[in-house]
Amino acid sequence: MAVPEVSREEQLNLESLTWGDLTWVNIEGPTERETEYLAQNYPFHHLDLDDCLSRIQRPKIDEYGAPKNYLFLVLHFPVFSKEAWVTTPSQVSVFIGENYLITLHKGELKPLVKLFRECQIDEESRQEYLGQGSGYLLYRIVDRLVDYCLPILNKIGDNIESVEDSVFSSGIHNAVRGISILRRDIISLRRIIWPMRAVIGSLEPKVRHFTKMDMSVYFGDMVDHMDKIWDGLDEYKEIIEGLNDTHDSLATNRTNEVVRMLTIIASILLPLTVVASIYGMNIPLPFQNSNYSLIFVLFIWLAIVGGMLYFFRRHHWI
Amino acid sequence: MAVPEVSREEQLNLESLTWGDLTWVNIEGPTERETEYLAQNYPFHHLDLDDCLSRIQRPKIDEYGAPKNYLFLVLHFPVFSKEAWVTTPSQVSVFIGENYLITLHKGELKPLVKLFRECQIDEESRQEYLGQGSGYLLYRIVDRLVDYCLPILNKIGDNIESVEDSVFSSGIHNAVRGISILRRDIISLRRIIWPMRAVIGSLEPKVRHFTKMDMSVYFGDMVDHMDKIWDGLDEYKEIIEGLNDTHDSLATNRTNEVVRMLTIIASILLPLTVVASIYGMNIPLPFQNSNYSLIFVLFIWLAIVGGMLYFFRRHHWI
Amino acid sequence: MAVPEVSREEQLNLESLTWGDLTWVNIEGPTERETEYLAQNYPFHHLDLDDCLSRIQRPKIDEYGAPKNYLFLVLHFPVFSKEAWVTTPSQVSVFIGENYLITLHKGELKPLVKLFRECQIDEESRQEYLGQGSGYLLYRIVDRLVDYCLPILNKIGDNIESVEDSVFSSGIHNAVRGISILRRDIISLRRIIWPMRAVIGSLEPKVRHFTKMDMSVYFGDMVDHMDKIWDGLDEYKEIIEGLNDTHDSLATNRTNEVVRMLTIIASILLPLTVVASIYGMNIPLPFQNSNYSLIFVLFIWLAIVGGMLYFFRRHHWI
Amino acid sequence: MAVPEVSREEQLNLESLTWGDLTWVNIEGPTERETEYLAQNYPFHHLDLDDCLSRIQRPKIDEYGAPKNYLFLVLHFPVFSKEAWVTTPSQVSVFIGENYLITLHKGELKPLVKLFRECQIDEESRQEYLGQGSGYLLYRIVDRLVDYCLPILNKIGDNIESVEDSVFSSGIHNAVRGISILRRDIISLRRIIWPMRAVIGSLEPKVRHFTKMDMSVYFGDMVDHMDKIWDGLDEYKEIIEGLNDTHDSLATNRTNEVVRMLTIIASILLPLTVVASIYGMNIPLPFQNSNYSLIFVLFIWLAIVGGMLYFFRRHHWI
Amino acid sequence: MAVPEVSREEQLNLESLTWGDLTWVNIEGPTERETEYLAQNYPFHHLDLDDCLSRIQRPKIDEYGAPKNYLFLVLHFPVFSKEAWVTTPSQVSVFIGENYLITLHKGELKPLVKLFRECQIDEESRQEYLGQGSGYLLYRIVDRLVDYCLPILNKIGDNIESVEDSVFSSGIHNAVRGISILRRDIISLRRIIWPMRAVIGSLEPKVRHFTKMDMSVYFGDMVDHMDKIWDGLDEYKEIIEGLNDTHDSLATNRTNEVVRMLTIIASILLPLTVVASIYGMNIPLPFQNSNYSLIFVLFIWLAIVGGMLYFFRRHHWI
Repeated sequence: MAVPEVSREEQLNLESLTWGDLTWVNIEGPTERETEYLAQNYPFHHLDLDDCLSRIQRPKIDEYGAPKNYLFLVLHFPVFSKEAWVTTPSQVSVFIGENYLITLHKGELKPLVKLFRECQIDEESRQEYLGQGSGYLLYRIVDRLVDYCLPILNKIGDNIESVEDSVFSSGIHNAVRGISILRRDIISLRRIIWPMRAVIGSLEPKVRHFTKMDMSVYFGDMVDHMDKIWDGLDEYKEIIEGLNDTHDSLATNRTNEVVRMLTIIASILLPLTVVASIYGMNIPLPFQNSNYSLIFVLFIWLAIVGGMLYFFRRHHWI
Repeated sequence: MAVPEVSREEQLNLESLTWGDLTWVNIEGPTERETEYLAQNYPFHHLDLDDCLSRIQRPKIDEYGAPKNYLFLVLHFPVFSKEAWVTTPSQVSVFIGENYLITLHKGELKPLVKLFRECQIDEESRQEYLGQGSGYLLYRIVDRLVDYCLPILNKIGDNIESVEDSVFSSGIHNAVRGISILRRDIISLRRIIWPMRAVIGSLEPKVRHFTKMDMSVYFGDMVDHMDKIWDGLDEYKEIIEGLNDTHDSLATNRTNEVVRMLTIIASILLPLTVVASIYGMNIPLPFQNSNYSLIFVLFIWLAIVGGMLYFFRRHHWI
Repeated sequence: MAVPEVSREEQLNLESLTWGDLTWVNIEGPTERETEYLAQNYPFHHLDLDDCLSRIQRPKIDEYGAPKNYLFLVLHFPVFSKEAWVTTPSQVSVFIGENYLITLHKGELKPLVKLFRECQIDEESRQEYLGQGSGYLLYRIVDRLVDYCLPILNKIGDNIESVEDSVFSSGIHNAVRGISILRRDIISLRRIIWPMRAVIGSLEPKVRHFTKMDMSVYFGDMVDHMDKIWDGLDEYKEIIEGLNDTHDSLATNRTNEVVRMLTIIASILLPLTVVASIYGMNIPLPFQNSNYSLIFVLFIWLAIVGGMLYFFRRHHWI
Repeated sequence: MAVPEVSREEQLNLESLTWGDLTWVNIEGPTERETEYLAQNYPFHHLDLDDCLSRIQRPKIDEYGAPKNYLFLVLHFPVFSKEAWVTTPSQVSVFIGENYLITLHKGELKPLVKLFRECQIDEESRQEYLGQGSGYLLYRIVDRLVDYCLPILNKIGDNIESVEDSVFSSGIHNAVRGISILRRDIISLRRIIWPMRAVIGSLEPKVRHFTKMDMSVYFGDMVDHMDKIWDGLDEYKEIIEGLNDTHDSLATNRTNEVVRMLTIIASILLPLTVVASIYGMNIPLPFQNSNYSLIFVLFIWLAIVGGMLYFFRRHHWI
Repeated sequence: MAVPEVSREEQLNLESLTWGDLTWVNIEGPTERETEYLAQNYPFHHLDLDDCLSRIQRPKIDEYGAPKNYLFLVLHFPVFSKEAWVTTPSQVSVFIGENYLITLHKGELKPLVKLFRECQIDEESRQEYLGQGSGYLLYRIVDRLVDYCLPILNKIGDNIESVEDSVFSSGIHNAVRGISILRRDIISLRRIIWPMRAVIGSLEPKVRHFTKMDMSVYFGDMVDHMDKIWDGLDEYKEIIEGLNDTHDSLATNRTNEVVRMLTIIASILLPLTVVASIYGMNIPLPFQNSNYSLIFVLFIWLAIVGGMLYFFRRHHWI
């Protein structure tokens, strides 16, 4: 369990920090070479090391008692990938022991990358984060990543409001696409947050081992934040389903209005055509040669149009 | 834990009341200055003080045993904001100790503001509310705020009834908007009440510490009211979903009627046009010059119209 | 805890019956005067007496041990109000002690009113109902009221069947209204029965105190009936939701048929009009003056109509 | 608890079988006379005997310890009634004691009737079924009845497949009716099976008393079959709901196609009519008397038709 | 419990492998002859042997303590049958004892067949799989079969994406079919995976008996994979339901557009026809013989068309 030397670290795509007796090893983009290195230097189970590279993990905590005495965490946090326009889970694997904390991730989670940089550069923050045991460091890392979910949630909330506006305005086609994308986003986020809640909820008693102070309040606070995020997603899910229903109702109403307009126009104009056709026939017709015949025809037309309008008014169509 | 002096309180946007050994400190619109003041005078955890200012809280109870010996509550109550036409949660943070009760809120919850004013002005009510320990005072405050939710619930009930009327009347467009707004309102309220139920349900055993008498009946009553509100919201949710379905069914039926009308009109008038067009052709036609040709044509028309009407009657269209 | 005198009872809108050492006090339409009277004569908690008058109760059991030694029940049973065409809960508050049982209600629940009259008039039934302790009397009252729910359930079942018939017949508009009303009725009933199930399910061990014999079988039977009612409501809820879907599917199909009819008619008649219009033009036309021109035109028409019919037949439209 | 005499049995619509010390009494179509007879000969609770005749039962197990020492079961099994085209529950009430098993039913459940006949005629099967105690006999009866549900389930599966075919074929109206009937059938079956699962799941420990051998494997097998039936019903429910959605989507698409066809036809023919009408006017027109006027008109027509077709092609309508 | 001889095995459609004291018997396509053979050589319960042949099983674990001391597993894994285009469960029955493991299946599950072949041919893998006790062998077999589900899941994910594309493109009919088939597939898979999760989740403590090392980490990993598959199916279910809604919304919008187009065309052309018909009447008309009459008529037309276009523009129809 020796502190890894600087030279080898660079070869291995691996960086480390030390404060007192605590070392934080950060591995961005782990490959088999890094996990082999870990296998040689730490007492980790080979299944755990496989999980760090696997793509089909679920968030979980694996606890190993003495003599191994370490905790293996798989955590997932949402990352919005702009190319595919979807939210996907990004995995952070964490090994935590008495005097070390090892994080393996792809470097997609900015708060984690930033936190490590901060500790590299600034001695004060290194003391703040690493000075109180590996459990406290874990809390600070996870807390940052959890808080990182809130802007994602707020962005969804904003998108919902803009979709809601477009549902009630006339540009329909856009709204369907917007609802569909948002819905899928919310489904994905829920799938990421749901198992994370269970993991974070059960974290505190297992980490207690590695902390110098009572941290139940801190972890309780983190669980509250996680629950808040879940509540928000739940609410958004219901709202977006409601919006979908509202859109469909409005679309049905709009079709109704259009058809009503068509019926009104056809009902008024078709009788006129019929009357005109009658006088267009090449057969002997009454009043045909009278000078008042046009007035007579117009009178019939007005009677028909008036009757139709009265009929539609009574049926509340216009 | 000294009783705060009056002069400093005014500077700090903070008011206090004392009866016997119990002090009620009320902070409307807390800022960092107020929480700093609390941090100096009371043994509160700094995370709790942060929570008082944070906007992303969930209702919760944090219990601190001796020597700190206080309870920290975050409570949310619905407030209807008229500008945005939505129901939003308004937070009340409460610290309760042996001989003090501190409430922090934004002043949006009228019953709480009113209760404090009442105690300021009227000595009798001060005795009534503060004379039986901090636990009893908490009960009175929370009970008032819970009862304050009932008019909101009743208003939703009234709105549902008016929307129901508009669904069955002909003004369709309005109904969709009404249903959509009500649905969103109910979703928001449910999100506020749901976590509150859990908090209020677990309040009694934790407050027992701070009350001079057995208050289980009182708190039980409050839990019943909360459950009643939840039941009501649940019922309203189902009703509004049912109304949405009913609206859609009615809209489909209306479109059906309109299209049916169009079809009937077209089916009757188009054949007439065809017959008239035939006699409008500039070619030799039978009976063309007969004086009875018009009667002949009219007879054909009547036959077609009669046949169409019979056909539609048989298909139950008219 | 003296037996109330007859004279005062009449003033107080309160009647009582005694058999052995058991007194049944029945209060129809309780007001503050009656609850004050109870407060003076019995050791009841003032919150319970408030609950008897309150309109926002939930079914519940409050248990008070020695020295008060009584049970307070709030029970809700459905009553169908003919004016508003809705099912509403009617409250019965019951205080039960060693030698008394007090019922407070509005007189809307006929079985309870009838049962009391029966005991007033007929000594035998008084012995039957009151002769075995207050717990047994409670069982008889509640059992009657529970059984009273079954005809309501059956009526809903009948209504569902008649609505189902109207869904498959052609009178559409009626069906939507019927489905909507039934759905709301079922929602209301479920809201009444749901909390009642919990109360009645937990009644037996709490009443055991006040019964002379083992009544677990009797109460078990009552719980079964309650569960049966709940099962029925659950089934009806699913059926009515299914009926709503069926109605919508049928309405969509009907619109489809109507539009198809319109399309067929327009497709056949519009080409005819076009052909006729051609020969109606005031320009030199081929075959115009031939005697066979009409036959030529009719032949073109038949070809068009035949082609259209063949096309629609191939697309399974007719 | 004497074995009933043969003569009285026949009067009473009651048959019995005996093997060793075990008697199986089978009552088809029980009336009050039969239950009175049972009341006189067996130590049964009068509520249980009432339940045998009642129509509003739920499946349940009532256990009576010594000295009564019997078990009362109410079991429901689905029976498909051909007249009403619905699946209804058929009740079997069973009393089981140390040396007797009494079944009361309406004779609708063929496997039970057949099993009894088998034991009456064939001594070998009498030994097989009755030779190992009343608990084993109960297992054999219930197992037969449970297995009897599987063909019903399979029939529903077949019906779903034929409805699925008709959804994707063009005969729409039929499919709605089929979906509606199947849905209702599945709802009814679920209501029957759901409470039965609980009863059968809790049967084994209660029957243990009356069996000579360890039967946990047998009862476990029966519970598995029951769960399998429930799983099947659950799957069918989801499939039928999916089919309903599919039907609606297809119907919407079909309406869309029909309206598109109408629009295309109207868009092509109406301009033609307009052009023809122009040349039908009795006013001076250009080219009116030219011999090429028809060709000129036809050219305009072709231009309009071509433009329309190009427009629809670009919008992917044809 | 003798090791079966090779000669008899071949007659019996049964193959076996031995390494150390552990024998793996593999039966592809079991019939009554094979189960009879097992009944003679092993202490298996006859119900378990029946279950191996039965088609109506559910995944389960049956545990038999000493002296029988074996475990009977029924496992189901999804197999996609290309003929029927559906995913169906394929059963693997496993008997596991101290020194034997017997698998019975239909040979449809390729990974199992392949694994057995591997062990037959290659001594090294025989040592790897069979060298650590029957429990470890079971783990290796089940783990392979569980991992085999992942490609099926991924294929569904791919299909969902292609269906999603087709929903947003114009080929509507295809999308409905695709959604319907995918939905059914997901329902079937969920029905297979759901009971398997429970079985695999409870496997570890029961198998502990038959393993030489602590395998909780291995089985925990397998449970994680199973949960991951379930999560994926859950997500797919929600996505496909959302896609169905999206399709319906888009189809409604498309119908709306088509009807709008029809209404616009009819509204513009019908007035033209009417005006033309007027001047086609065989009665005295104003301006009839003027040379400017055509210009007059065209002017009226343009006014009507302009008015209509302005009206539709204002209603956001075009």
